[in-house]
Amino acid sequence: MPETEHRWVVDLELTPPSLGDNTADADRLVAGLQKQLGSPNVSLDRTVLLPLPDLLRKNDYRVRCIVCRDRGAWKVIFATGPADDRPIAGLAVDLGTSRVVLRLVGLTDGRTLAESAFDNPQLNVGADILARIHYADTTGGLEHLQELIVDGLNRHMALLCRQADITQGQVHLAAIAGNTAMSHLLLGTNPHWMIREPYIPAVNRPGLTRASDLGLNIHPGGRVLVFPNIGSYFGGDLIAGILYSDLHRRENTAILVDVGTNAEVVLGNHNWLMACAGAAGPALEGGVTKMGMMAGPGVIDRIDIDPKTHQFQVHTIENQKPIGICGSGLIDLAAQMFLAGMIDLRGKLVPGRCDGRYQEKDGLGYLVVIAADRSGTGKDLTIGQADLDSLTRSKAAMFTILETITTTVGVAMQDLSKFYVAGTFGSFIRPASAISIGMLPDLDIDRYKPLGNSSLGGATMALMSADAVDEIDAIQERITYMELNVNQDFMNRFSAAKFFPHTDPTRFPSVKVWQE
Amino acid sequence: MPETEHRWVVDLELTPPSLGDNTADADRLVAGLQKQLGSPNVSLDRTVLLPLPDLLRKNDYRVRCIVCRDRGAWKVIFATGPADDRPIAGLAVDLGTSRVVLRLVGLTDGRTLAESAFDNPQLNVGADILARIHYADTTGGLEHLQELIVDGLNRHMALLCRQADITQGQVHLAAIAGNTAMSHLLLGTNPHWMIREPYIPAVNRPGLTRASDLGLNIHPGGRVLVFPNIGSYFGGDLIAGILYSDLHRRENTAILVDVGTNAEVVLGNHNWLMACAGAAGPALEGGVTKMGMMAGPGVIDRIDIDPKTHQFQVHTIENQKPIGICGSGLIDLAAQMFLAGMIDLRGKLVPGRCDGRYQEKDGLGYLVVIAADRSGTGKDLTIGQADLDSLTRSKAAMFTILETITTTVGVAMQDLSKFYVAGTFGSFIRPASAISIGMLPDLDIDRYKPLGNSSLGGATMALMSADAVDEIDAIQERITYMELNVNQDFMNRFSAAKFFPHTDPTRFPSVKVWQE
Repeated sequence: MPETEHRWVVDLELTPPSLGDNTADADRLVAGLQKQLGSPNVSLDRTVLLPLPDLLRKNDYRVRCIVCRDRGAWKVIFATGPADDRPIAGLAVDLGTSRVVLRLVGLTDGRTLAESAFDNPQLNVGADILARIHYADTTGGLEHLQELIVDGLNRHMALLCRQADITQGQVHLAAIAGNTAMSHLLLGTNPHWMIREPYIPAVNRPGLTRASDLGLNIHPGGRVLVFPNIGSYFGGDLIAGILYSDLHRRENTAILVDVGTNAEVVLGNHNWLMACAGAAGPALEGGVTKMGMMAGPGVIDRIDIDPKTHQFQVHTIENQKPIGICGSGLIDLAAQMFLAGMIDLRGKLVPGRCDGRYQEKDGLGYLVVIAADRSGTGKDLTIGQADLDSLTRSKAAMFTILETITTTVGVAMQDLSKFYVAGTFGSFIRPASAISIGMLPDLDIDRYKPLGNSSLGGATMALMSADAVDEIDAIQERITYMELNVNQDFMNRFSAAKFFPHTDPTRFPSVKVWQE
Repeated sequence: MPETEHRWVVDLELTPPSLGDNTADADRLVAGLQKQLGSPNVSLDRTVLLPLPDLLRKNDYRVRCIVCRDRGAWKVIFATGPADDRPIAGLAVDLGTSRVVLRLVGLTDGRTLAESAFDNPQLNVGADILARIHYADTTGGLEHLQELIVDGLNRHMALLCRQADITQGQVHLAAIAGNTAMSHLLLGTNPHWMIREPYIPAVNRPGLTRASDLGLNIHPGGRVLVFPNIGSYFGGDLIAGILYSDLHRRENTAILVDVGTNAEVVLGNHNWLMACAGAAGPALEGGVTKMGMMAGPGVIDRIDIDPKTHQFQVHTIENQKPIGICGSGLIDLAAQMFLAGMIDLRGKLVPGRCDGRYQEKDGLGYLVVIAADRSGTGKDLTIGQADLDSLTRSKAAMFTILETITTTVGVAMQDLSKFYVAGTFGSFIRPASAISIGMLPDLDIDRYKPLGNSSLGGATMALMSADAVDEIDAIQERITYMELNVNQDFMNRFSAAKFFPHTDPTRFPSVKVWQE
């Protein structure tokens, strides 16, 4: 690690040549940068070399450079005069399987210039990543997928640039954080072997790639930093999250959790990092119940139930008529029902406590959350016993993963100084509700920190320092990835976690079920 | 400097992945190379990354790579299976202003596969380099010059490859040594400022360039090493010569001289290197006398005169009828005439000693070397007093340059352990003759070593070791370039050196003029 931080943009004042000092122009610039950057390994892109003699003479040997370092070597990727006051921009990208978020940032001041998001155009090929990986094996499939995502990025970046009143040529860097498969599909590397035993990605540390090699329409000499992966099931989006949360620099052990169909967990501090990933089931993404859906207008994200009157107080996104429920809403609903005694320790509906809301169909019980006359769909919004069972399995899986990784490392959950929850889920979830159903451990609420879009946040941070490439590589290198073995220990923990909140209620002292 | 030498071609046997070791394919290859190369800074070209997963699996994780190191970072530029027994070739180029020499070499065994030479196509734009530098400033001029030389290289390389029965895609490296202006014109960098005070090249250490960036038709992932320059008047051809002569590794101080219109000199040993360059005049390249010409069939390259009978014994290249004389032949002629008493200490013809060969025209004396009836042109081949005066100035300039650099460093000429003479001139010259006229110092004849085409030799050596890029950079860095100041000291030395062999004959004890 360097002693001082390096910026991507470096301003230099060189001594003009003379008969007594006839160092060549390129070598003079390199020597200046070697001194400034503290490294002997500096070279110029050809696109910088060719116009350099005139540039230096026009600007009295004062020059502004964009530099980047990859695998120990510095490259100058752009040079301009000091009077050039056009903004120099970078593009941060959260490359999601479903949704892609872009942020245009000023490289010199870190200012956000514009933001936007769009649906991943690869959704047309396959909604889930597995379908796309298979499609990549068909003739021209890989190229088509790469084209789709690059075209999408180019199209939306063009809009962003117009919005920020800059040209795409003023964008010199892109930092892109996605899961392993999405990173492969962006790079044009085939993810074929990722999903076949022993599950090997083509590349984990792609480092910097020339934007022109990927077809990304930023400055022709620009570079793309694709965040490294740990393996097929732990991607660059998580590394970006670690960078963003600062987990790798903290003295006290903390944990970062990305909750979804697949739960990803990193535990550690400035000395060590341990990661694992495991299936938590689709319930947490609103992907199981009939009324489940992704967050959006009219989606229930929060529910309060008065334990005494059993009155439901429902909040929807943008306060529209309710049309469904998202993952965090579902957790709220289950937690509130449990605390009000409407479901029991095993997560089963208690008909006698559900007032008029309990109904049965084909012998299966369900609960009417929103009656047809008040819903946005004109139909009852309901949650069935099967949905609750699915949620129970998901929350038990999540807790078991947390318990397994902390136990393996020998850290008590109570000793976690911070509990970061990443993603949209992390922004919407009420930790108290997740604790109430025993999905997350019973820590002081203020230890829980939603990170928001930490993938985008980490990508943005990478644009703030040329040392980020090395820092990210160092994080990637430091992580020990733990394979989750679904063995007897795991199954025992899982069974115990299938209760609300847990078979051992002393582990959740703050959870108090309403007593008449 | 690394402890062991690195080859450009590296064979690796990787451990195949397993559930317990799921390192990605690219990262596995990088880790193997980090170990083998002893460096943490290794990355892959995109052209290597994309096909890698299939390549590794098809070959049981055994792989043959071509690697290169530039400015501290290793790059893998090609990977293939171990069973791929097609030759892997490199191209060495002596990029002369007038003549370009190519040599195709096997990278694994160093075997010469084919050789050829062609006239620099830029000759059509301008015979001398100055004309081309001016032409480069016209619209499209620089691009045209670059195109001319690259097209020439591509055309002749295609022929070489056919001759060697390989494809151009099997050529992965090119090492090109030329003077500073030619190196610029190849790279497409403008040499404009080289010829304007304070004489600044655009670049002295271009390092490795992608062949595709230059338009050179070798493997698309191939690299071109353009030898570094010391300055506008001391080019990569000389650095190649140093590499080839091993001057920079020798314990005992030696000297390397490239004789031509411009004389370039390097003096030094494994601790230090001192260089200078100065005008010696065109006489030494056969560019002054009416009968002077470049070496070729029918050109006199050697003359013996019996001091007693004054009989001329003339040798021509390929034993054809004489049509002219080259630089080394001229030196032989002058030396033999001087030793036979046909010219005096001041280099003036002594009519009484020239038998019937002396004639006059318009009051100027000249000597018939070959009478019309024996010449290949049907005319007398003659040498005039003016030609001899020009040679005298050239040989005096050469000796003065040698005296100046040795005196500056404080090395006696007699202490030079080796005296390397580079170029065609060095191959043809008889050191005894050069000593006789006082052009080169009076050392034991066996200290003189002709180097032949040391520029091509150095370029070939660079293809034998991946460390060569660093070694060449280290040579470039170590050289102290001495500006030749034409001051009173220099003029005094020059005046003293205008005698045959010198005003101080004790400095040339071996030179004995015939006494009747």
